[in-house]
Amino acid sequence: MPTIPLLPYSILVGNLSILCLGLTVYWSQHWFGGFAWDGSRKMFNWHPVLMVTGMVILYGIAALVYRLPFSQMGSKLPWKVLHATLTLIAFISAILGLEAVFKFHNVQKIPNMYSLHSWLGLTAVLLFSCQWLMGFASFLLPWMPIWFRALYKPVHVFFGSVILGLSTASCISGINEKLFMRLKNSTTLYSQLPAEAWFANFLGMLILVFGVLVLLGLAIPGWKRSDVNSQGIRQPLLPEAR
Amino acid sequence: MPTIPLLPYSILVGNLSILCLGLTVYWSQHWFGGFAWDGSRKMFNWHPVLMVTGMVILYGIAALVYRLPFSQMGSKLPWKVLHATLTLIAFISAILGLEAVFKFHNVQKIPNMYSLHSWLGLTAVLLFSCQWLMGFASFLLPWMPIWFRALYKPVHVFFGSVILGLSTASCISGINEKLFMRLKNSTTLYSQLPAEAWFANFLGMLILVFGVLVLLGLAIPGWKRSDVNSQGIRQPLLPEAR
Repeated sequence: MPTIPLLPYSILVGNLSILCLGLTVYWSQHWFGGFAWDGSRKMFNWHPVLMVTGMVILYGIAALVYRLPFSQMGSKLPWKVLHATLTLIAFISAILGLEAVFKFHNVQKIPNMYSLHSWLGLTAVLLFSCQWLMGFASFLLPWMPIWFRALYKPVHVFFGSVILGLSTASCISGINEKLFMRLKNSTTLYSQLPAEAWFANFLGMLILVFGVLVLLGLAIPGWKRSDVNSQGIRQPLLPEAR
Repeated sequence: MPTIPLLPYSILVGNLSILCLGLTVYWSQHWFGGFAWDGSRKMFNWHPVLMVTGMVILYGIAALVYRLPFSQMGSKLPWKVLHATLTLIAFISAILGLEAVFKFHNVQKIPNMYSLHSWLGLTAVLLFSCQWLMGFASFLLPWMPIWFRALYKPVHVFFGSVILGLSTASCISGINEKLFMRLKNSTTLYSQLPAEAWFANFLGMLILVFGVLVLLGLAIPGWKRSDVNSQGIRQPLLPEAR
């Protein structure tokens, strides 16, 4: 893989994450009418914001933690804790994002879990919960044998990328679905590409670019932490009983 | 990565590809009313069939060609030609799939390229065209310098997986979009999950599983061809002029 300078990459990913989050908030605030936590339509508006924040932005940044140059040396433990903390915040954000749409649906008597977007999104969150629990039990708690950690690590890495892919696909299908639901009056048909459609399509493509950039950062071999020269290669959070 | 037995994997991927294709044809035939190439609604019905066939099934199988045990020994050239041929057929299928929807839209006076699904899908096809041309020029024609081939190969591999991910996401957003378009009468609302919704949601999840299985097959290190012990590591289609 050709070498990419890390600094411009980091600046690009950082700015893109702020842009994706800002545009999602703007879409919900400006076109959907703002936020509330009361089962009204404004409660739904937390759903895109919390899912993009949790399942894409925080998740993507957490995945890149081990690619930072200053994470390459010394003990791995602080970076494991940072990775686990960021992904935990991401997971809590996703759960709140699900609560936002489920409570809105329940109050408004709209059925849950009928669209393919919802099936895909829930699959992503369920896989994420398994991933987090397995990662915590395997890499931070002391009682998992080293042979299992070594066996499980590439599985964790593989599913890390898969879950990010599923989350990105969920966002895209969700934005697409929401635009079809919203833009159906003759004056604002989605097929006429009104301003909101341009805006949200563009947001969807930016989320896609963010996801691909994170996967690229994970794929560059030179950015991977070499565990051979570092302390604490198998260092768990709690010391093992002796 | 834990070792997975190749034979059950191959049988699973093979059967899943037939199932995905069969269910897509059945959806178009049974619920959409069959096929035609005349600009009518039946012309659109080729779109899901040709896109799933080209951008997911054939593309996925072509990506796995180098993972077959009998491709691991001897000259790489026949496998390069098979990979290029399968991806070319996949690309032609995708172009015909685009023609099916564009001609249908044009005849029916429906705007093109307004939904996020269409933006994502066209991005996937455009990236695929660049990928195929770059792959052909780099690995099959003789005039590309070896240093460039070595530099480009991991880029080709990375974008190979990315394009499959985009294609899978396009299929899912496309199925979701089509169900919202079709199931909007009070007797067949998508939210009431009629038989067609179950069927097509299930199809979308199967396409997702197929895509993840292909990515898994590509990620297993033990299945990767070792170029060190093989002939023709840099063997192009045409011999270089001496």
